[in-house]
Amino acid sequence: MKAAIINVTGYGGAELARILAGHPDFEVAAVTGRSAAGRRLAEIFPHLSELHLDIAEELEGDADIVFSALPHAASAEKVVPLMEAGARVVDFSADFRLRKATVYTEWYKVDHPSPTHLETAVYGLPELNREDVRGADLVANPGCYPSAAILALAPAVSGSLIGEDVIVDAKSGVSGAGRGLSLSTHYSEVNESLKAYSVSGHRHMPEIVQELGRINPGPDLRLTLLTHLVPMTRGILVSCYAQLNEDIAGSAEASKTTEIYTEHYRDEPFVEVVSEPPATKQTLGSNRCLVYPTVDVRTDRLVVIACIDNLVKGAAGQAVQNANIMLGLPETSGLEQLALYP
Amino acid sequence: MKAAIINVTGYGGAELARILAGHPDFEVAAVTGRSAAGRRLAEIFPHLSELHLDIAEELEGDADIVFSALPHAASAEKVVPLMEAGARVVDFSADFRLRKATVYTEWYKVDHPSPTHLETAVYGLPELNREDVRGADLVANPGCYPSAAILALAPAVSGSLIGEDVIVDAKSGVSGAGRGLSLSTHYSEVNESLKAYSVSGHRHMPEIVQELGRINPGPDLRLTLLTHLVPMTRGILVSCYAQLNEDIAGSAEASKTTEIYTEHYRDEPFVEVVSEPPATKQTLGSNRCLVYPTVDVRTDRLVVIACIDNLVKGAAGQAVQNANIMLGLPETSGLEQLALYP
Amino acid sequence: MKAAIINVTGYGGAELARILAGHPDFEVAAVTGRSAAGRRLAEIFPHLSELHLDIAEELEGDADIVFSALPHAASAEKVVPLMEAGARVVDFSADFRLRKATVYTEWYKVDHPSPTHLETAVYGLPELNREDVRGADLVANPGCYPSAAILALAPAVSGSLIGEDVIVDAKSGVSGAGRGLSLSTHYSEVNESLKAYSVSGHRHMPEIVQELGRINPGPDLRLTLLTHLVPMTRGILVSCYAQLNEDIAGSAEASKTTEIYTEHYRDEPFVEVVSEPPATKQTLGSNRCLVYPTVDVRTDRLVVIACIDNLVKGAAGQAVQNANIMLGLPETSGLEQLALYP
Amino acid sequence: MKAAIINVTGYGGAELARILAGHPDFEVAAVTGRSAAGRRLAEIFPHLSELHLDIAEELEGDADIVFSALPHAASAEKVVPLMEAGARVVDFSADFRLRKATVYTEWYKVDHPSPTHLETAVYGLPELNREDVRGADLVANPGCYPSAAILALAPAVSGSLIGEDVIVDAKSGVSGAGRGLSLSTHYSEVNESLKAYSVSGHRHMPEIVQELGRINPGPDLRLTLLTHLVPMTRGILVSCYAQLNEDIAGSAEASKTTEIYTEHYRDEPFVEVVSEPPATKQTLGSNRCLVYPTVDVRTDRLVVIACIDNLVKGAAGQAVQNANIMLGLPETSGLEQLALYP
Repeated sequence: MKAAIINVTGYGGAELARILAGHPDFEVAAVTGRSAAGRRLAEIFPHLSELHLDIAEELEGDADIVFSALPHAASAEKVVPLMEAGARVVDFSADFRLRKATVYTEWYKVDHPSPTHLETAVYGLPELNREDVRGADLVANPGCYPSAAILALAPAVSGSLIGEDVIVDAKSGVSGAGRGLSLSTHYSEVNESLKAYSVSGHRHMPEIVQELGRINPGPDLRLTLLTHLVPMTRGILVSCYAQLNEDIAGSAEASKTTEIYTEHYRDEPFVEVVSEPPATKQTLGSNRCLVYPTVDVRTDRLVVIACIDNLVKGAAGQAVQNANIMLGLPETSGLEQLALYP
Repeated sequence: MKAAIINVTGYGGAELARILAGHPDFEVAAVTGRSAAGRRLAEIFPHLSELHLDIAEELEGDADIVFSALPHAASAEKVVPLMEAGARVVDFSADFRLRKATVYTEWYKVDHPSPTHLETAVYGLPELNREDVRGADLVANPGCYPSAAILALAPAVSGSLIGEDVIVDAKSGVSGAGRGLSLSTHYSEVNESLKAYSVSGHRHMPEIVQELGRINPGPDLRLTLLTHLVPMTRGILVSCYAQLNEDIAGSAEASKTTEIYTEHYRDEPFVEVVSEPPATKQTLGSNRCLVYPTVDVRTDRLVVIACIDNLVKGAAGQAVQNANIMLGLPETSGLEQLALYP
Repeated sequence: MKAAIINVTGYGGAELARILAGHPDFEVAAVTGRSAAGRRLAEIFPHLSELHLDIAEELEGDADIVFSALPHAASAEKVVPLMEAGARVVDFSADFRLRKATVYTEWYKVDHPSPTHLETAVYGLPELNREDVRGADLVANPGCYPSAAILALAPAVSGSLIGEDVIVDAKSGVSGAGRGLSLSTHYSEVNESLKAYSVSGHRHMPEIVQELGRINPGPDLRLTLLTHLVPMTRGILVSCYAQLNEDIAGSAEASKTTEIYTEHYRDEPFVEVVSEPPATKQTLGSNRCLVYPTVDVRTDRLVVIACIDNLVKGAAGQAVQNANIMLGLPETSGLEQLALYP
Repeated sequence: MKAAIINVTGYGGAELARILAGHPDFEVAAVTGRSAAGRRLAEIFPHLSELHLDIAEELEGDADIVFSALPHAASAEKVVPLMEAGARVVDFSADFRLRKATVYTEWYKVDHPSPTHLETAVYGLPELNREDVRGADLVANPGCYPSAAILALAPAVSGSLIGEDVIVDAKSGVSGAGRGLSLSTHYSEVNESLKAYSVSGHRHMPEIVQELGRINPGPDLRLTLLTHLVPMTRGILVSCYAQLNEDIAGSAEASKTTEIYTEHYRDEPFVEVVSEPPATKQTLGSNRCLVYPTVDVRTDRLVVIACIDNLVKGAAGQAVQNANIMLGLPETSGLEQLALYP
């Protein structure tokens, strides 16, 4: 099948090209880039030289699936006409993740370019919405933090283990900030340093509330998401805290919780409930999400730690997982690469 | 004045030697080390070659202040006889931090070697206990995490801004784990990776509860402390979460909180309330603690971020600060070095 | 085909398991480990959990190929009886790399355990010795530094471009030092630091002289190899310096050199002559060697820079490449994974 | 005494401000910055908040010493009028390092803005030119690579130990590339990667040839300098290779060489000849240069390894050392801080 990548020149697009290069069912038929149009892909990313691709200004010709790795607003603008011409799309941006245009505007500070598509777009976290993804023409690939946070909390929310007060302390490697230059991703500023950012509210927060709310309707979560920049290239780890409900709290709470989590993800190919606190390095280059639930028995608090590779399960790998489902391929096709360790 | 260092061969001891080398009022008169006795200090730590010291097996001769950088249990055993012979001591270990021997035993899994000294020892966080430090013969230097966490939360607890439910998500560089070899500090395992550890409860937790409890008696905090290992050498950053009390919550809560924090630390030479989220690198090699309070206005939660250099304000610098106070020297003496940046 | 791995518990063995897990023609039939015998492989390396293997004390049953990732001396001891029982072996250690037992003893300070096998063993750098590898029962997998250095220099030696005086300034990530604990691989000692090591002579030096000598007999190279430890996990980069011979030196020397290099490696699947100085990150997780020849026109010196992933082309990937050749499989089988970038 | 800093907003300028803040004899009277004029220094560099300085557009008022941390060409333009008005200047840029305007133009691709000053400017490496620095009004602070390379090679050149063929393989941390944004200093591109750069010739090369040539007139060195970017913030390490002359080569060459080096630097406060290969971390934040000479006895080659902190002995510390000498202060004043380790 033919795949096209819009804006291959960021880290999400490049990682997608890498994964598709090893995918048995896809051929990368075309790639575009904003500033690099007309150049060979190998000039920008030497590690992709074997793909022998040129970067086009615009997509031409058909593709069975179009991936857009453009930023928000720019993506909707490019993708909507393609869909109207019949393309099926996986969109990396935030443009189609939120159901309500008003919420989008509140967080992204622009009017939504195409609110009608919000009704038909599917939030592409297969572990929640697999059936909807299957028939979708437009899949909104989740944000990197929400991918980890929702997978960390879904079993607890689904099983009504916890109340509404939830804190997600999230930590990310620097590649999540993209390839654009800024002082906050300048090597000497970031290296050997750790800081919180977007402290007044990270844009990924409403996705988490929305999707966990769909699992278990009721009052919205009262969620605090605080994001931190960690001096490493790849990896996201979230530590989630919530009070256990009284019916689960008690002497057997930890083992019960582990059991519920294990059962919840029993058939998921890319989510593993682990018995030791996971390290982000265990996911490097792989599409797996490792989830470790535990209980602070002194306070009856649920603590769930989850980690992913932000560019794979948090972006390009998840996009391929969605595309596999959309096109009726085996869900794990092209995604079986184990983590690179150490 | 003469200073002696017991167990100079760990990172805490070495950092202390470095700071004392630049201190105008101290001379390092003697250093001991466990495995390295008989060798020159410069063989173990070339950066300390200018001190021209040999590592002794045991302290001999007098010192105006004795610093013990031994681990718990070993430290009490060595330090108690010295005190009985008249020495004044700053102890880096956990041996004299906790007021109750039972709590010590619960967390450190050994009987306390000298419970009577728990009554007279002073918890050496000068910002809380300055006057007690002044007259003390035995000062327990706080743990690295508590140094940051208590300074982050003290104004909120002191001002009764928050309830009892507190979460401290703490992140540390690897030097906090010391110089002893283990797979969890092996370069290739730690580098480019992030993980939580001591998830069933970190030993530094009871110090935080104890000291914040002394500020504002009432029910103990219901504290969850989760610690993470970050791929960098130095630095601790804590992110603290607690619900604001209703009388402070509301439209002006953020600015009121900042005001209370700023006022609280107005005269402190080593604590700075900052207006942007701080980065650990801003404290590298310095004795400062940077504190950033903010409010998640969607949930009326107080969020306080604080950072220190774990080997300076979290260990050796704080020890010198304590010694300065004990000996009537200016509190900032020898501690005025600015952070190394970048 | 069935593959067995002796000593899977080091980084070379684990990387081999990872690569074989994605190899279409191999099944990992058995793995052994020295200290970890009896445990599941996933306990030691969670990223390999999908292999569902237990670590045995000794190999049992047949295998089409046996990989030994034991250190020198230990490897020969284990591998020789297996060969005598009919096994075909790729050995990661130095035991069968050097043709002369005396040279082995000079550098490794032990008598060679099995000198007769030195005559039949093949030095497994396929780009030099592909035909010999094909028929071999015992292939000595090259050292990580020699893999890069020989590939950097082979075209120059083969084409008689340079004289005998050669300097190889080599830099390696820390994983090359293995998984064993030592202060020199302790995170806080290595991170943010750079140093030379083995300055009196690195054991990989004689391999380089031997193999380049076989390409172009004549006086031995007068080679200085200096190795450096770089604060990163994976990657080797070598910078090689030699005087150009007079017949090549001159105005067109740089372009001629590039042409000779490009021609030399035209048909090699894993060696790429690149037109910009390569970065080690461009090889992360891949089996490629990037080679950049240039000329310092002020001094008529040839400068060749080459880089590899030390655990792939410098160890496990090369071993699989050798096994592919030995067993008549496509040489690139299982090795087509692109580098992980960034 | 009053010091002024032109262009404090780069890493060299900021490091200078940090050092001067702890200098007993200097007060930082004024700082300027190009883009940040009008802002408080603490906004740009929070670690310098205690200096309580505003960034001016232009210097006003007198200063006993003016430091210019502007880039080449811009620096001469600003500094020449100040000198004509009577200022004494230490210039961080390359503008006054090279004696010949033609060489400057060859390497920096601009006409020299003020060739007459090349005759009176002093190359400010005190270990070579201390007496000239003392009386100078204009001191050209050496480049970071030359600081290390010249100190590594000066005893060998001075003692005629080596021939003309010299190779310097140099490795630098990323802060040497400054605070300006570029893809080559973007965290995710640089981290966990190593590469050579400026392979057709680094601009610091002619300084090394010039200054070593002044020590021992005769034919110019035939020097190849190859520079590499290492994933760490601070630190330069150079590995230098040259053939020993026959009269020194032989059985006692290594110990003789060490003796000559030790003798050469016996009275130098900031150069230490060490007996183990040094690590850059041993110089972090200090003004010391560690030099390790050895001999490859198989080839009679001298190998000298030297390391510095590129921002201290390679820039700001050396500038202060020069200023101390110019103003008759103790040479080590303000520069006695030990390295931060680990």
